[in-house]
Amino acid sequence: MPVKINAARLKKNLEELAGFGALETGGIARESFSAADLAAKRWLMGKIKAAGLLATSDAAGNVWGRLGDQNRAVVIGSHLDTVPEGGAFDGALGVLAGLECLQTINESELPCNQAIEMVAFAGEEGAFLSFLGSRSMVGSLETSEVLAAKNMKGVPLVSAMADAGLDHRQIASARQDFSRISAYLELHIEQGPVLEASNIPIGIVTDIVGIDSYWISFLGEANHAGTTPMDMRRDALSGATAFHRRINAWIHSSPGGVVTVGNIDVNPGAFNIVPGRVRLTLEFRHTSVSRLQKMASSFMEIGNAVAEEMGLIFKSERLIWAPPVSLSDKIIDTIRQEADALGFAHRFMASGAGHDAQILAQKIKTGMIFVPSIGGKSHCPEENTHWSDIEKGVQLLLNSVIKLIMA
Amino acid sequence: MPVKINAARLKKNLEELAGFGALETGGIARESFSAADLAAKRWLMGKIKAAGLLATSDAAGNVWGRLGDQNRAVVIGSHLDTVPEGGAFDGALGVLAGLECLQTINESELPCNQAIEMVAFAGEEGAFLSFLGSRSMVGSLETSEVLAAKNMKGVPLVSAMADAGLDHRQIASARQDFSRISAYLELHIEQGPVLEASNIPIGIVTDIVGIDSYWISFLGEANHAGTTPMDMRRDALSGATAFHRRINAWIHSSPGGVVTVGNIDVNPGAFNIVPGRVRLTLEFRHTSVSRLQKMASSFMEIGNAVAEEMGLIFKSERLIWAPPVSLSDKIIDTIRQEADALGFAHRFMASGAGHDAQILAQKIKTGMIFVPSIGGKSHCPEENTHWSDIEKGVQLLLNSVIKLIMA
Repeated sequence: MPVKINAARLKKNLEELAGFGALETGGIARESFSAADLAAKRWLMGKIKAAGLLATSDAAGNVWGRLGDQNRAVVIGSHLDTVPEGGAFDGALGVLAGLECLQTINESELPCNQAIEMVAFAGEEGAFLSFLGSRSMVGSLETSEVLAAKNMKGVPLVSAMADAGLDHRQIASARQDFSRISAYLELHIEQGPVLEASNIPIGIVTDIVGIDSYWISFLGEANHAGTTPMDMRRDALSGATAFHRRINAWIHSSPGGVVTVGNIDVNPGAFNIVPGRVRLTLEFRHTSVSRLQKMASSFMEIGNAVAEEMGLIFKSERLIWAPPVSLSDKIIDTIRQEADALGFAHRFMASGAGHDAQILAQKIKTGMIFVPSIGGKSHCPEENTHWSDIEKGVQLLLNSVIKLIMA
Repeated sequence: MPVKINAARLKKNLEELAGFGALETGGIARESFSAADLAAKRWLMGKIKAAGLLATSDAAGNVWGRLGDQNRAVVIGSHLDTVPEGGAFDGALGVLAGLECLQTINESELPCNQAIEMVAFAGEEGAFLSFLGSRSMVGSLETSEVLAAKNMKGVPLVSAMADAGLDHRQIASARQDFSRISAYLELHIEQGPVLEASNIPIGIVTDIVGIDSYWISFLGEANHAGTTPMDMRRDALSGATAFHRRINAWIHSSPGGVVTVGNIDVNPGAFNIVPGRVRLTLEFRHTSVSRLQKMASSFMEIGNAVAEEMGLIFKSERLIWAPPVSLSDKIIDTIRQEADALGFAHRFMASGAGHDAQILAQKIKTGMIFVPSIGGKSHCPEENTHWSDIEKGVQLLLNSVIKLIMA
């Protein structure tokens, strides 16, 4: 007899949670340690207790729920915080899907070999520090990072934690003993257009992309735009646009990966002055370390070649390097079998965005399920997912968890 | 017996004038109606009087010197004001070359059929309004422009004029009777690299370019830089860089003219967001109206084609349209003959920059002489011209003026 989620209860919970930090624009502002975030955590603690589960919180501000008193446990998690004008599904769906799984299993009276825990991580979106809660859980957060972190308003993380009743000196106590945890599972919205475009409700995440990013500069000579003939110019912006065109051409003829120039800063920046100095952002992502290295060396080669052809100087400065992460083959296979058993169309895919799952994957077997984002939109008020897709995703999460705790 | 300029006197005058507004960086800040500009005008009035010439100033702040009491006159001019961090030659050389011509002819006791006047125009560089003094002289300045004009600090032109002892309501009185003026001549630094690169000391200006400029926009869709595959993006910046590449290619295969993209503004402008909206500056110059029209239509076609290929929207908004100006064939020929007689190598050329001469050319026969700019530099502290080139330029100006006043 199959165990089914209570879709009406899940929907009501999602609607209630969306009220915390709701903006008049329709978006949600629930940044880490904001009043709305702290109120949402209190609401969640109440929901966990009301469901007859054990509710706790730790020194990093993570909220936990537990079903069962076995030593070993499967953990289901995501985060409660949002970007400054975010939506109702990024993070929130995964947290409430975890609660729904615990409640459904609790009500089912299934015999379980392991406990099941849900966790709402603090500060995934990086108002102060990205992955604050999950990095605390795995013990990879440095004290120096905690002391230095400030939000956009200049508020130090330690002050924000103190206002939330948390002592940053205790943050190491949020580290978990991973010998007792058998697996981590996370359900999340895709935040991209791939599932919707292929009309498939379920993405089974195999890898999370690595990110390499740089400040790229082209240096030429600022000159009068009227008196300097075209063939006597050393136009830094012409170098930058040639570079952008060539890396776009390169990526279109290469296997996978994405590359983005997200901003260009031109100096002096006047209508009537040939640009002398241009700085641009370069970010690329791929699931393969060797492909990322190949991209980096190819893009630097292109930059140097453009500079030489145009009489410019090319410079690069690395900003972020985050290696790619592969998720657990065993859990990927479990999710796939359960999706097949449920008759849900699915596809394997990489996650192009970062998730708490990539932090957990450093310590334990980890799996992720994606559901489609309408129009590929996220981190905005329009962020949405069809309810039928949510039901499928949460049911698949439940069935996968049941399979794992029966092992 | 040839009349020769007094090079030592000219050099001393240039050095003294460079002291007004001198910056510690080596540059000069002598913006229109600044204290340094007003002090420089008082100094110039004193120099004119000390030379035994008639010194006057008008309601626009132009300073005049006059030799002779004939009704008809040849006018030699340029401006005293500089850009915020300019050099010692742009404008200043032409004004002091005019003074030198009047002094040399005065001392020579040559019989003259016409008077000779020198003018130091107020506000050519546009701290408040471009060509303030020369437009006042030809009567093309509108009262509404005068009332609306402010400098970068927000000071209204009328206040700055009042502080300088000038009543803006009297500005129309600065208009001259052009029936009494037979010609206008201006010596100026080239502000570009052409003369230096061809090792020619004299440029005889035939035309001053027209300018057409636009704000160009590409509109696409801002998306997550990790989760949006390359082939599902509508990247506004990729549109802008393709546009820039194609207009650069177009201009390199077309007869003359220059085109400059001087700035790009990218939105949202983050490392990890595909650009949704990009605005860039587009400015192009040519001596031919029909070529300018061809450039405008071709660049708009390119913009529309790029937008269509990339699923973007293309928009343009015209900012400035200033038609090209042709100088007087008669004066061009006079200058050429005098340069040949002096044995100075010369070339015909268009001016890519704007000058008071283009305003005067609307009313009277006008000619311009260029001397080389070292490294093509101007509007910066490094602005410089070899002294031997300055001597040639001023001597040629003198000989051309003598030829004209003998007519």
